Amino acid sequence: MDLITVKEALNIILNTTENFGTENIDFIQSVGRILKEDIKADRDFPPFNRVSMDGIAISSDTFNKGIREFKIEGIQAAGSPQLTLQNPENCIEAMTGAILPNNTDIVIQYELLTIEKGFAHVNLDAVKSFQNVHLKGLDRKQDAILIPKNTLISAAEIGVFATVGKTTVKVAKQPTVMIISTGNELVSVSETPADYQIRRSNVFTLVSLLERINIKAETAHIADDKNLLINKIDTFLNDFDVLLFSGAVSKGKFDFIPEVLNDLGVQKLFHTVKQRPGKPFWFGKKGNKTIFAFPGNPVSTFANCLKYFYPWYFKSAGLNFENKNQAILSEDYFFKPDLTYFLQVKLTQKEGKLYATPITGKGSADLANLIDSDAFLELPDDRSNFTKGEVFPILSYRSF
Amino acid sequence: MDLITVKEALNIILNTTENFGTENIDFIQSVGRILKEDIKADRDFPPFNRVSMDGIAISSDTFNKGIREFKIEGIQAAGSPQLTLQNPENCIEAMTGAILPNNTDIVIQYELLTIEKGFAHVNLDAVKSFQNVHLKGLDRKQDAILIPKNTLISAAEIGVFATVGKTTVKVAKQPTVMIISTGNELVSVSETPADYQIRRSNVFTLVSLLERINIKAETAHIADDKNLLINKIDTFLNDFDVLLFSGAVSKGKFDFIPEVLNDLGVQKLFHTVKQRPGKPFWFGKKGNKTIFAFPGNPVSTFANCLKYFYPWYFKSAGLNFENKNQAILSEDYFFKPDLTYFLQVKLTQKEGKLYATPITGKGSADLANLIDSDAFLELPDDRSNFTKGEVFPILSYRSF
Repeated sequence: MDLITVKEALNIILNTTENFGTENIDFIQSVGRILKEDIKADRDFPPFNRVSMDGIAISSDTFNKGIREFKIEGIQAAGSPQLTLQNPENCIEAMTGAILPNNTDIVIQYELLTIEKGFAHVNLDAVKSFQNVHLKGLDRKQDAILIPKNTLISAAEIGVFATVGKTTVKVAKQPTVMIISTGNELVSVSETPADYQIRRSNVFTLVSLLERINIKAETAHIADDKNLLINKIDTFLNDFDVLLFSGAVSKGKFDFIPEVLNDLGVQKLFHTVKQRPGKPFWFGKKGNKTIFAFPGNPVSTFANCLKYFYPWYFKSAGLNFENKNQAILSEDYFFKPDLTYFLQVKLTQKEGKLYATPITGKGSADLANLIDSDAFLELPDDRSNFTKGEVFPILSYRSF
Repeated sequence: MDLITVKEALNIILNTTENFGTENIDFIQSVGRILKEDIKADRDFPPFNRVSMDGIAISSDTFNKGIREFKIEGIQAAGSPQLTLQNPENCIEAMTGAILPNNTDIVIQYELLTIEKGFAHVNLDAVKSFQNVHLKGLDRKQDAILIPKNTLISAAEIGVFATVGKTTVKVAKQPTVMIISTGNELVSVSETPADYQIRRSNVFTLVSLLERINIKAETAHIADDKNLLINKIDTFLNDFDVLLFSGAVSKGKFDFIPEVLNDLGVQKLFHTVKQRPGKPFWFGKKGNKTIFAFPGNPVSTFANCLKYFYPWYFKSAGLNFENKNQAILSEDYFFKPDLTYFLQVKLTQKEGKLYATPITGKGSADLANLIDSDAFLELPDDRSNFTKGEVFPILSYRSF
């Protein structure tokens, strides 16, 4: 029996990542995608000596000569070409965001002024050099890399794209993914199942888990008929980069998936992992096509997608990502089998620490139990007793 | 001066939430939305005595009489109507997910069997009652609430919707939001700015921050012209539930927003908060319309959206959500002004603890600094020295 550990399974998977190339997309659509070019400053930031408080712009030399009353020559508005102070003993009113007027080097904010009859009186003993001026190039110099290649794009990056004029950005292309359910017990969501039937649900859970990483997947259902499976899967292998199966990978008489994939020339890299739930997980490759065949129980499919598909995708897209999240077990726990256990837990944050409380369900088919939990705590396979206060890796699936 | 604290500002905002009603949407589109109905089990779960391992179904009475060899009467496949064991001394092969055959009560998995010439030999001394049978109703009873109203929908909930046949679900309607930039220094992303101009970026950052909570906002730019502002904002007040402004709320000669909003009958609830960045934040209401006028610096807008708009939206939609996330300051920090400081930090997880390392930028206009950080650490306004190891609230903006 080719039973391997979770760590071995993950290593095999991470050694079979694929490069799906790049594409240029509208910058505003790029959140959640992985950037495939360095984003550079197209000019200095700020691009000019920028007024950072509303007030008057003056020459510090004049101020330092003891002058505290300045005739107002004009207004330097944000978005207007640079004005020049004509008389060094005067001032120009200057607005936040404006370019600093020529012949001035400091700004004194309105809070420290009295303005009367075209004159500003300064109530201040001393000034600092370049007071309230955000100097050209202080933040970043032209051509500096603002965002390195292989960054996962968030709202922060969107603002920078806009600032440097990147209307389109180069990102990793997403793999095309087909999610396939099998099992004659499954009926569609809109149908009323007979006593011995249930509705399809895993494919929709997987669609949602993939949407979370910006992959739009397609779905299909195939009946438990070997010839039908061979025909349809053959087509899908041609048309998609990745196939995700849910079900038909165990020891049942109708668990045709491993056999069918073998017949279609897919190379099995492993079948059965020392874990619960999700043990009969089958993984294989055919050329650059990647096949994850997860066990059909809802919790198994869910945990395996987080544990194996996510990191495979991130690495394929070039993201330098390792899930280092861990949580502190909040009570003693016992799990006897010699398997890695993905324990369902509720997470709570307290004083900067993340605690995981076991939410014990009724096994891997208990989908509703996922509702009460937020994550899986990964308990190692080499022991049975897990003590309150110990720290283990987590796979969490909620955003807020 | 009506300077208020961050806590007071947030309280005022949370006392002005609005109910935007509900709508029914396709269940598969509902991730990130807030559920507005209880989701109940349409039948017991499992809905039948469900076989949970592939093997043979037998009567435990027969086994307990010492019989270890069973003639195979047939196969109970998943998705097939229930078979009946005709002779209690025989067995029926039964597959995971199938209904347990009549006249049987336990399943013995293939791993413990030898099958030869139509007979299964069991290599086992004792059995447990209902071994490998997931009993009807064990997980949840019919009509039990599986997902309570006001839950933020994730992939886990999608699977449950499918399971109980909810093709459409009732969710909170999203507010309609208009995001407005002002400032004559701004040019569009596709333009090359003059020396004294910059590109519009805040509105796109806000669009992305709102997409993160599933709100699709519109955007507009209005020049710094009072009449134009009055006309356009008047229209927007009629057409949208929420207006988000970025800029023109400070003391500049062209900071028309507070005045224009006043002229349009918007009631100011506060202007200026004891915080940095984001101090000149203006907030008001006109009937059931809500107006957040954020200061125009990129970091100010960003922090204020996370700190004020997010909780206002969550509470409006009925989500029982409080941001309790905190992080541990990883080094001593000094901040003198008597203001709440939203310090930009890089987060690192270690042993279940979340550490925040200050990423000191060049002030609130330094957008690129958001790239190097993950969150804002909220340092209180009543002191200046913050010590390594202390715990403070965080506002984080990255998903993975």
